[in-house]
Amino acid sequence: MSILVVGSVAFDSVKTPFGQAQDILGGAASFFSVAASFFSQVNMVAVIGEDFPAEHLELYRKHSIDLRGLQTSPGKTFRWVAEYGQALNEAKTLETHLNVFENFLPEIPEEYKNTEYVFLANIDPVLQKKVMTQVANPRFVACDTMNYWITSKLKELNETLELVDILVINDQEARMLAQEPNLIKAAKVIQQMGPKILVVKKGEYGVSLFTEESIFSAPAFPLEMVYDPTGAGDTFAGGFVGFLAKAEKLDEATLRKAVIYGSVMASFACEDFSLNRLDCLTSPEIRERYRQFLKLTAFEPDQIF
Amino acid sequence: MSILVVGSVAFDSVKTPFGQAQDILGGAASFFSVAASFFSQVNMVAVIGEDFPAEHLELYRKHSIDLRGLQTSPGKTFRWVAEYGQALNEAKTLETHLNVFENFLPEIPEEYKNTEYVFLANIDPVLQKKVMTQVANPRFVACDTMNYWITSKLKELNETLELVDILVINDQEARMLAQEPNLIKAAKVIQQMGPKILVVKKGEYGVSLFTEESIFSAPAFPLEMVYDPTGAGDTFAGGFVGFLAKAEKLDEATLRKAVIYGSVMASFACEDFSLNRLDCLTSPEIRERYRQFLKLTAFEPDQIF
Repeated sequence: MSILVVGSVAFDSVKTPFGQAQDILGGAASFFSVAASFFSQVNMVAVIGEDFPAEHLELYRKHSIDLRGLQTSPGKTFRWVAEYGQALNEAKTLETHLNVFENFLPEIPEEYKNTEYVFLANIDPVLQKKVMTQVANPRFVACDTMNYWITSKLKELNETLELVDILVINDQEARMLAQEPNLIKAAKVIQQMGPKILVVKKGEYGVSLFTEESIFSAPAFPLEMVYDPTGAGDTFAGGFVGFLAKAEKLDEATLRKAVIYGSVMASFACEDFSLNRLDCLTSPEIRERYRQFLKLTAFEPDQIF
Repeated sequence: MSILVVGSVAFDSVKTPFGQAQDILGGAASFFSVAASFFSQVNMVAVIGEDFPAEHLELYRKHSIDLRGLQTSPGKTFRWVAEYGQALNEAKTLETHLNVFENFLPEIPEEYKNTEYVFLANIDPVLQKKVMTQVANPRFVACDTMNYWITSKLKELNETLELVDILVINDQEARMLAQEPNLIKAAKVIQQMGPKILVVKKGEYGVSLFTEESIFSAPAFPLEMVYDPTGAGDTFAGGFVGFLAKAEKLDEATLRKAVIYGSVMASFACEDFSLNRLDCLTSPEIRERYRQFLKLTAFEPDQIF
C-alpha cells in the first residue's frame, strides 16, 4: 500500500557537541519518506529550489520514492540553521530561510489522488486542509503540527484536525493544544477535536500512544552515541505510518508495533547527520533492533508478591 | 527478610497546583519504610525532635516498622518547605530547617546489625559509610544520594560507593556523578565506581535499570491526577528494595520486577499528599497496578515486516 506525504524539504546546517555539517539534506518530508520507504511505497509532495542537487534526488529514487509531486520553484531551497547543547534534546534555531517554501502550494498529482494513506507533515494547517480536498477517501490521515501553528492558527488547525485520524506531536505541543498540563487529560481533549489516535513523542524519553481503548508507553532506544537528533520525530512518523500502511490494519496490537518501528527508525536517524544512517540501513538491522526493543522492555508477570 | 533503612524523617510544607498542606509527615525514611513494608519487614534508623506527634509513630507501627533505631533528640524535627509549578516535575525548595537532623549520627541498634538488606537513603556520604561499619555482611546494600553531595563531598561519596551494590539516583545526578551527558556511558562509569546495578529515575518519564548484562527501561505509570510528587523517588526505592528483599534473589528477571513494583508504589504516592495514599493502600491494589503495567508496556514480536 502506498503513502502520500506532504511536507518540507530543506538544507540543514547543524552543530552538535559531536560535530557540525553545512547544507545537508533535511526537512520533514525527506526524513519521513526515507524511513517509510522501508515499509511501503511513498509518494512525496514538496517543493525544492533551483539549487537542489541531483544527488539528493538520486537518494530519494534509490528508496523508490515517487517524485512526481516534487515541485521545483524559482529561487533557493528552504534553509534551517540550528545548534544543540550537551543535552541534545532541543534544537536552538539560529536561522530560518523559508525561500521557495514560503509560497508552497501543495498540488497533488492525479496519480497520487487514490493513495490509501496520507501523512500531513508539519506545514500551515490551511495547506494541510487543502491537501485533504484533493485526495479521495484515504484509509487514514495522520498529521503533525507544531507550537507555532497552535499559537498563530488555532482555528484553522482545529478545522484540519477534524479531518485527521492520527495526530503525531510532541508532549509540549499536546499540552499546549489541549490547554491541559496532564497528558492523559490532554489526550482526551485532543481526541474530542478529531483524531481518535494520538501519538505523543517525548524525545529521549520515548513515546506514548493514546487510543480510545488504552494507553501504551514505550521508552526510546538507548543510544551510546547520539550524533544529531534532527529529523528524529519525522523519522519516527515515517516508521510508524510506513508500518501501518504495510500491515493494512489499525488495531491495538498493530498500532503498538508501529510505535516500536517508529522508535527503531528514529534511533537510527540519530546515529549520524542528515539521512546518512537511514540511507544505508537494511531491513535485517531494523528487525534486529525491534527484537532488542522487546528485550529492553520485557518483564514478567509476578507470582512472588 | 528484613531491611535496614537509614535516612530522614521530616515535616513537609508543600504547595502544588492542586492544593497545599502544612507540616505533613515526610522524609526519605518515611516514604521508603512505608512503601517497603508492603513487601518486607523494615527496621528504621532516623532522628525526630520532641515535637514529633504520637500519631505518626502509630502510622509507622501500623505498617510493622521497627522503631528501635528511631532516636528522639532535643529540639525540632527536620522541616522542608517547597512549591511545585504546573509541570510538577521539580520541587522548588523555599526553606530547609535541618533542626535535629543537622547533628544526626546514625546508631544501628544491636538487633538490627544482622539485617540482610540495607538502604542508605540520601544523607551525608560520611554517615552512610559509618552505617556500613556497623552492619554485619548484608546480602546487598542499596544507596541514594543527591547533587549536593556529588558537588560538596565527592571523595567521601566515592568511598561509600565502593561499598554499595545498587545505586538508585535520578538521571541528572547520574550524569553529574559520571561527568558524562550520555546515560549509557554514565552508567558504565558509575559501575566502575562500585555499584554493579544502577537504577536511574526520570520522574514522570520512568526508570532505567543498568546491570552488567543489559538495560531495562520502564515508563512511569500514567496518572490522571498527580497531587504531590514529594517522596516519589524514596517510595520507588521502598517498593524496589522491598520486593528484592521479599524475593531473596538478585537476578535479571527479579530486578526488572522490582523496578515495576517500585514504579507502582511511586505512582500511588503521587495520588495524595504525604503518606496518605500509601497508608491506606492494599496488596490487591498493588498487584492490580502491576498487571496494568504489563498492559501499558506490552507489544508483540512482529511477523509482518
